[in-house]
Amino acid sequence: MKIGKQTIKLENTPKILQTSSIVGPKETQGPLSQYFDKHIDDIFFGETTFEKAESKFMKTCIDNLLSKVPTLPENIDYIFAGDLLNQCICSGYCIRDLNIPFFGLYGACSTFCESLSLASTFINAGYAQKCIAATSSHFCSAERQFRMPLEHGNQKSPTAQCTVTASGSAIVVPKDVGTQGPLITHITPGKIIDMGITDMTNMGAAMAPAAFNTIMTHLQDTQRSANYYDIIATGDLGVLGSEILVDLFNKEGIDLNGIHADCGALIYNHDKQDTHCGGSGCGCMASVFSGYFFDQLKSKKINKILIVATGALMSPLSIQQGESIPGIAHAVAIENEV
Amino acid sequence: MKIGKQTIKLENTPKILQTSSIVGPKETQGPLSQYFDKHIDDIFFGETTFEKAESKFMKTCIDNLLSKVPTLPENIDYIFAGDLLNQCICSGYCIRDLNIPFFGLYGACSTFCESLSLASTFINAGYAQKCIAATSSHFCSAERQFRMPLEHGNQKSPTAQCTVTASGSAIVVPKDVGTQGPLITHITPGKIIDMGITDMTNMGAAMAPAAFNTIMTHLQDTQRSANYYDIIATGDLGVLGSEILVDLFNKEGIDLNGIHADCGALIYNHDKQDTHCGGSGCGCMASVFSGYFFDQLKSKKINKILIVATGALMSPLSIQQGESIPGIAHAVAIENEV
Repeated sequence: MKIGKQTIKLENTPKILQTSSIVGPKETQGPLSQYFDKHIDDIFFGETTFEKAESKFMKTCIDNLLSKVPTLPENIDYIFAGDLLNQCICSGYCIRDLNIPFFGLYGACSTFCESLSLASTFINAGYAQKCIAATSSHFCSAERQFRMPLEHGNQKSPTAQCTVTASGSAIVVPKDVGTQGPLITHITPGKIIDMGITDMTNMGAAMAPAAFNTIMTHLQDTQRSANYYDIIATGDLGVLGSEILVDLFNKEGIDLNGIHADCGALIYNHDKQDTHCGGSGCGCMASVFSGYFFDQLKSKKINKILIVATGALMSPLSIQQGESIPGIAHAVAIENEV
Repeated sequence: MKIGKQTIKLENTPKILQTSSIVGPKETQGPLSQYFDKHIDDIFFGETTFEKAESKFMKTCIDNLLSKVPTLPENIDYIFAGDLLNQCICSGYCIRDLNIPFFGLYGACSTFCESLSLASTFINAGYAQKCIAATSSHFCSAERQFRMPLEHGNQKSPTAQCTVTASGSAIVVPKDVGTQGPLITHITPGKIIDMGITDMTNMGAAMAPAAFNTIMTHLQDTQRSANYYDIIATGDLGVLGSEILVDLFNKEGIDLNGIHADCGALIYNHDKQDTHCGGSGCGCMASVFSGYFFDQLKSKKINKILIVATGALMSPLSIQQGESIPGIAHAVAIENEV
């Protein structure tokens, strides 16, 4: 049922039965390392190209998810997945081997919440019994596609973020199926917000207004205050984008201190790891939610979380053509039964 | 409700209230010209780049749709849209100006049925009252992204298809809202099928097995025979891909003659227009359905159609890396009330 301006209340509260996460070498050295299921030291993951490696990250992540459930791929009704690569080839080649009906998504770094939103609407409506949401990103494939070949060795801007090499996935089922797990209660799909930022090395600033818009709309639609949630976690605003988001809320008289966290800011030790403003990419929120926050929910350290994946919908070509960066953010409310 | 292996029966039968179509110069000269709403002679559509032109095609298409309904963009609950460009920038920049919550999709040329499927599941479940499905493609932006710069003037393979410069969109509402219109009764989201084709100039052959798989599954799931439908329309198999599809069905003892049509084969006069195997691209089925078939449904010349948009999920990079072409096809059953 739609409530307010753009939120859907999922009355049957679909359940996240299990999640799976896999990360690359840099993320393994970060502070959340212990929460991830699988750690891959080799950035090529035994493949000959970065793109094939990324696809293997996602495939291994989903195989690991299926091994936890346990079910056969053929028994998954639908998979909703996407990535950052041109024509989403990471997802395409990964899911080719899975024999599962597939909805391909592109929401840039917002895709994890988009996929989780659609998976949960399908379960809530009774269209399916088991849906998977999955996304991934890879530092090396993203770097050469969006920025510069790695061999170029260019210096990074202080506002730049580091694309996370990781994949995360979740399996969503009806509330009464399987063991206890956190429930998806609302989704708030976002509008595109573009404040005119044209600097591709400052994505946090481009996406923060979209996160602000979606979170504010969610709170108004659900008539909740920000502190209803133990955590409001954005996807990859990074350190600077997070400051902008907190400022925007301050102007509305809402204090996010102690409530807001950002997956991109959490995943690295920025000073030691030279990651500037933090992590980014489809795999950032996917792995941090599937690894860290899902653990916190399962162990009841937190009981109510709003996850808000943030995406920048430009391409290198559109920036070369003088366009600004359109931001989007999708929110998913996840709550333990109380 | 899911029926059979992968079909969803939409019990509340969402309605296609209106559609809108816009085409470029080559499509204007084709045999379906009279069915399209808008004809644009200038391939640049007054813009400075092909990508900006494509975005304007989609924006004009959606504005035209809204003018038919009439409703404000703010009153559209959600829009599901996608295109072929890297990072789907055509949709992103178009929808930025619309102020509508946005689900970005990537299914290559299968995206129109993907967007129509998701829009109809949202209406059927009561999540929304008005959803838009929209896709587009542009010959010049696709040619330089997927193949060669136009300036190169390369010769085309006899099996090649011509990316359609067009956009199509549809507004889906609950059955009891507004004037009479065709109803969406079932969707069959497809699996990825890859038979090992590596020739990027022979997309029809790469996608035909996916179309076969989805249509066969749909018929089995719904316990319908092929001739239940007045037309089974594939998206852009083209002339050769259509022959392969008909052959595949013949092997199963099913005769598609007189039932099967292909939007890519319909949109051009191949011999006169030098379009080889026909049209392709996200905008092909979008415009041919929104223009031609919607007219045929409204005028009751046909009453039952299965539209099956077909996509090839490769990228130029994945082909350079030696990969084959994964195909996918999504089916949507649309029926007049009888």
